[in-house]
Order: sequence, then C-alpha cells, then structure tokens
Amino acid sequence: MEKETTRVEAFSDGVFAIALTLLILSIKIPNRDAFVTSEKLWFALINLWPSYLAFLLSFAAVLIMWINHHGFFKYLRKINNGFLYANGFLLLTVTFINFPTAVLAVYFATPAVNIAAAFYSGTILLINIAYNLLWFSSAYKRRLVKDEISDELIIKIRNAYWLGFFIYLFAFIISFFLPYLGLFISVSLWIFWLALDYEKDKKNKLRKR
Amino acid sequence: MEKETTRVEAFSDGVFAIALTLLILSIKIPNRDAFVTSEKLWFALINLWPSYLAFLLSFAAVLIMWINHHGFFKYLRKINNGFLYANGFLLLTVTFINFPTAVLAVYFATPAVNIAAAFYSGTILLINIAYNLLWFSSAYKRRLVKDEISDELIIKIRNAYWLGFFIYLFAFIISFFLPYLGLFISVSLWIFWLALDYEKDKKNKLRKR
Amino acid sequence: MEKETTRVEAFSDGVFAIALTLLILSIKIPNRDAFVTSEKLWFALINLWPSYLAFLLSFAAVLIMWINHHGFFKYLRKINNGFLYANGFLLLTVTFINFPTAVLAVYFATPAVNIAAAFYSGTILLINIAYNLLWFSSAYKRRLVKDEISDELIIKIRNAYWLGFFIYLFAFIISFFLPYLGLFISVSLWIFWLALDYEKDKKNKLRKR
Amino acid sequence: MEKETTRVEAFSDGVFAIALTLLILSIKIPNRDAFVTSEKLWFALINLWPSYLAFLLSFAAVLIMWINHHGFFKYLRKINNGFLYANGFLLLTVTFINFPTAVLAVYFATPAVNIAAAFYSGTILLINIAYNLLWFSSAYKRRLVKDEISDELIIKIRNAYWLGFFIYLFAFIISFFLPYLGLFISVSLWIFWLALDYEKDKKNKLRKR
Repeated sequence: MEKETTRVEAFSDGVFAIALTLLILSIKIPNRDAFVTSEKLWFALINLWPSYLAFLLSFAAVLIMWINHHGFFKYLRKINNGFLYANGFLLLTVTFINFPTAVLAVYFATPAVNIAAAFYSGTILLINIAYNLLWFSSAYKRRLVKDEISDELIIKIRNAYWLGFFIYLFAFIISFFLPYLGLFISVSLWIFWLALDYEKDKKNKLRKR
Repeated sequence: MEKETTRVEAFSDGVFAIALTLLILSIKIPNRDAFVTSEKLWFALINLWPSYLAFLLSFAAVLIMWINHHGFFKYLRKINNGFLYANGFLLLTVTFINFPTAVLAVYFATPAVNIAAAFYSGTILLINIAYNLLWFSSAYKRRLVKDEISDELIIKIRNAYWLGFFIYLFAFIISFFLPYLGLFISVSLWIFWLALDYEKDKKNKLRKR
Repeated sequence: MEKETTRVEAFSDGVFAIALTLLILSIKIPNRDAFVTSEKLWFALINLWPSYLAFLLSFAAVLIMWINHHGFFKYLRKINNGFLYANGFLLLTVTFINFPTAVLAVYFATPAVNIAAAFYSGTILLINIAYNLLWFSSAYKRRLVKDEISDELIIKIRNAYWLGFFIYLFAFIISFFLPYLGLFISVSLWIFWLALDYEKDKKNKLRKR
Repeated sequence: MEKETTRVEAFSDGVFAIALTLLILSIKIPNRDAFVTSEKLWFALINLWPSYLAFLLSFAAVLIMWINHHGFFKYLRKINNGFLYANGFLLLTVTFINFPTAVLAVYFATPAVNIAAAFYSGTILLINIAYNLLWFSSAYKRRLVKDEISDELIIKIRNAYWLGFFIYLFAFIISFFLPYLGLFISVSLWIFWLALDYEKDKKNKLRKR
C-alpha cells in the first residue's frame, strides 16, 4: 500500500508543479504598436503590476498548499477510492486557480475589482472546502491515518481547516464590498497555514523522541 | 523488467498530469473593454459557464482515465514494443481531449452545439478504442499479464471495454441529433468506470487473503 | 553515480512529457463569429486537418525520440558534464519542435508549405545532430558506456545516427522543392528508429542469456 | 529526512522542467494574411530571430540553474522551513523568467530594447539573489549541510554567488544604456557557473579518494 500512496502523491505533486508554473501565462505581453519607444515599454511593464501581484499571490498560495498537502500525506498509512476523489477535487480547484488569477491580473486596477476579488476569494474558499473533504475522507474515524498519529493532532488539523472555512467565507463575502480587505484576509491566512505546518513539524520531532 | 514498467508508467503519469492541468487554458479571460463595470464582469464570468462545465467534465474524465490506467499497469508483469505503441496512442488521445474541450467551451451555448458535442464524444470514443488496444496488446493470450491475475478478471475487463465501445459509439452518433443526451451518456459512463475500478480493488483484496 | 544518471533521465523524461503535451496547443480553436451554425463549425473543424496532421506527426516523433533516448540511457554507466550539455542541447531541440509544428499546422495547406516543411524538416535534422552529439559525448572511445555493451552495438548505433543525418539533410533540402516528399521521408524514418530500438531489445535479450 | 530532501528536489525539478519547456510558448506564430507566399513566410520566420535568441538564452540559463540547483542539493543533509521558503522564492523567479524572455523576444529589435534587456537582466539578478538566500538559509553556520562538506567549499560557493550578485547588478544597470553589453555580461556569466559546477565535481571526486 505504501507504493500506492507514493504514486498518488507523485501525481498530485506533478499537478501542483504544473499549476504553479502555468501561472506565469497569466501575465500578458504588452502589445507592440507601430511606434515603439523605451518610455512606452517602461510604463507598459510598470502598468502590469496587478499581473505581477496576482502571480505572486497565487504562486505563494499554491506553494503553501503543496507544503500542506505533503504534510497531510505523511500521516496516511493507506488510501482508498473516497480519498482519491477528494484528492482529485482538490487538484481540480488548485488547477482552477489559474483562471481567477488571470482575471484578477486584468481587472485589479478597474472598477470591477470587487467581482475579480470575490471570484478569487471564492476559489480559495473552494480549495479550503477541498481540504476539509480531504480531511474527512481520511481522518474521520481515523480511517486512513497511521497509528502513531495522535487523536489530538487530528482534531487540531480539523479545527484549523474548519476555522479556515469560516474566515475564507467571510473574506469571500467581504470581497464584494471591500475587495482589497477580502484579498488581504486571504493572503494573511497563508501565514497561519505555514504556522500550522510548522507545528506539525514540531509534533513530529516530539514524537520521535 | 519491473523498472521498465515503472518508467513507462511514470512517463504516462506525467503526460496525464500535464494534459489534466492544461485543461484550464481552455477557459478564456473575458475581454476588458473601455468601460469596465462590476456588472459587466459579473455577467461575463457567469456567461462562461459552458467553459467551467467543459473543464469540469474533462478534468473528471482524465482523472478517471488515469485511475484506470494505473489499475491496468498493476496487472502487467512486463511490457513490450506493441504495448508501448498502444500506450503511446492512448497518451495521444488523452492529450488531444484538450482541443474538443476548448471547442465545447466556446460552442456549448450556440446552435452548433451538436457538432461540438459529437467532436467531444468522438474523442471519448477514440480514447475507448485506445483502451481496447491497450487491453489487446497486453492481455490477449495473457501476453504481458502477471500469473496471479485470473482469466476471469481479464475477460471481465475486456467485456467492460467492449461494452464501453458500443455505448460511446451510440453517444457519438446521438450527439449529432441530441447533443445534451450524447454528452450525458458519456458522462454517466464514468461512474461505470469508477465502479469497475472499485471491483478491481475488491478482487485485489480477495486475492490477498 | 547510478542515482545521478537516474535523475538526469527523470528530468529529461519530464521535458519530453511536457514538450509532447504542449503540442496540443498548436491546434487553434476556430473563431466564433456572430452567426454560428452547425455547418460552419463542421467545416471549420474539418479544415483544421493540417493541424491534426502536424500534431499527429510531432506527437509520434517526440514519443519515438523518447523511446530512443531511454534506450540510450540504458547503456550508460555514468554521465559527465559534456554529456549533460549534449543532453541539454537535445532537450532544447525537442522543446523547439513545438514551434515548427505550429507553423506547419497553419501553413500546410497554403502556397508557403515548402518553407513550413523545410523549417520542420530542418528542426528534425537538428534533433538528429543532437543525437549524434549525444552519441559522441558518451560512446566515443567508450567514455561513459557500460562494460557489457559490445563495440559492435556502439558502432551500429553510430552508423544509424549518421545514416539518419544524411537522410534528414536530404529531406530538409528536398522540402524546399517537394515539401510533401520531404515530410514523408522524415516520417518514414521513424519506422527505422523503431526498428533500431527493437534490435536493441533483441540484443539485450541475447546478452542476458 | 533523506526522503524529505528527495521530494522537495523532485518537485523543484518538475518546476524547472516545466518552466524550461514553457519557454517555447514565447515564440509567436507569424500571422497568416490573405495572400500567403513562400517569400513572406521565409522572411517572417527569419524576422523571428530575436525570439529564437531569447528562447536559446533562457533555455541555457534555466538548464544551468537546474544543474547548479542539483549540485547544491547534494550538499544538504536535511531541509527546514526556512530553506523551503528560500527554495520557493527561487522557483518563483525561475518560473518568472518566461515573461521577460517573451518581452525580450518581442522588443529586441526595437528602440525599446534597453528596457527589455534591463527587465531581463533584472530578473537574472533576482534569481541570483534567490540563490544567495538559498545559500544563506542552508549553509550559513552550516545549518543544513552534510558533515563531509568542507568549510572551504562552503565559503567558495558563497563568494561565487556574491560575486555573481555584483556582476549581475552591474549588468542590470548597464542594460539601460548599453542593452547588448548588459545581456552579453549576463550570458557570459553562465560559463562561470558551469566552471563552478565543474569544480564541485572535481572536489567530489577528490573527497571520494
């Protein structure tokens, strides 16, 4: 079964890596018109800052998701079909983030930023739901987790994902009215996920003693 | 020979993962015109629903194909050149599905939906033929299958792929006249493939007892 | 050193798999104009046949190159920097084939087909040169090949690659005047490469006895 | 911990391979107008030389970065979160190079070449900073390096990266005024990195004696 887990993880890693790298395609090359000047290209490149920002945000987001995904797999002793579907749904949402990123890149500095931000936050919310499903399909009743993982840690991760759900839901709703705040909340939460992962590492070290 | 099988499988996994992730490029960003408003972007994003649907359908399809592909490899004790070509043809059809998906995304809500649906169903039919060839190149006369795989299981998989062929052929033809029904049949069949895979798993478990 | 070879091979496999899958992006979706009809889409999809053909040709080409590349790696006992550069140049040419494929797709059924075909054949010629360099960097004076590989086999592969060079050079030049013949020669040669690979396999089996 | 390092390296390899292969998308197919002739396509393909050059430069750059990245990983006995972030930042910059490459391809033969060259050199500078951070996060106070790696080698790599920083900074600034010189300096330095890597190899061999 060990090999099975490894292969699903390798496939998921591949999708994460591709989804991550495809993000660069969301930055569009400025059109070259008849009279090209240095000044025009300079300002064209600077005016692309929403594209750079959207690329940066999504790159960091997908990278942290990958780190968490990997942290999650370490706890599993085996996988089943239910887990495969939950993981497939997660990969779908992670792949999808390319599209709201490109939308955000184009519409960030326009009056439609609230719709673009809500679309982006909504996708992040969907990814959180996928992580909750992943937890449910594997950790609920300890179906697929290794024996050495404590109940305490399982509950802790569940609570973190649930807390994430409510915060992302709030960020999604607020994005319609205060788009920058909505995006800021989504971004801030990454630090929380990193912290969670760090905690996991510390737990791991403790367990090994 | 074991290593050989692993490497072809790893390469195929890579192509599956990339073909899966590239699907997101079939959703095109709405054009930004001179007067951007929240309402316009809202409706533009909503009007993309055929794109979301096509992405969802193809993502699920490729994912299930990957699961089946993997299930198939588990039965092989070695591979030969004939199998490599059959597998290469399968990868070609799996990669190709990106194109009918993009066509379906653009033409779903138009009078040309029947052609788009037939093109899509036809590609799914082609993928089924590739799976039949894969079966033939490896399981016919038990050329490449492991000794512990029962004849019964081999016949069962063959029958499932053949049944699939006739249903997909029917879906392809019906798509010209009743496009939504044609697509619905293609989609419904995925559940059947999942069930097949599940059966495989149960068989595996039985064998291990 | 074994691990080193494995990693370079895995990286190369990744580039092959991505270059292969990106080929699908060379097929462009037909534009949707104001009055969409089934007939229009039907003919638009049929008129894309040069795109399908170019996709098919390049997919088969890259797949066979991958099989040969893999066959080549099996003979190596270690790698050095010279080999890394030769391999890097090969990956560059394999990646590049995406561009002449897209050009061929667009210009196949036009009066400019000879330039498109020559561009395509020229790239195939370049790939052949890369394979010759790969041979030279590793098999010349048996620098990197395993002890169990016979001198006879090394010479045989070298001769095959050199023969390929002259045939591809001829195909490249003839493409300017008789584009379809030039392309046909390039395609026919794949069967030759497959045969070469098969011979390798047979040799391997003999050696193991 | 060994497995942990392997997995991060495999993920990074994936991103490198994809970023490398996506570079081909920076070459745009010449538009087909109403009256296609061989001469037009001939000159259109020749006029794309800045695109070929930009593709070549970036392909070589990313490949050498990958070789160095791999050389770096060989020295690590474990990884921690700080290293993961530094590595993530490196992957971001490596992925990003696709965009300045595409900009350079379009604006190389225009009066705006200085901005395009500075944008490109600036990204190379950013990648160098990422390598410096990678060194700092792992080799500073020998946090993550293997015991058998000498202090001398660690200092040598650090000095090479720092020297690189000042040369790339110079190339970045000079690009605004003498774009071709700036690009030339960036390119020349690759030979230096290759030399560094070669030295590493020699060191490795010495150590094994």
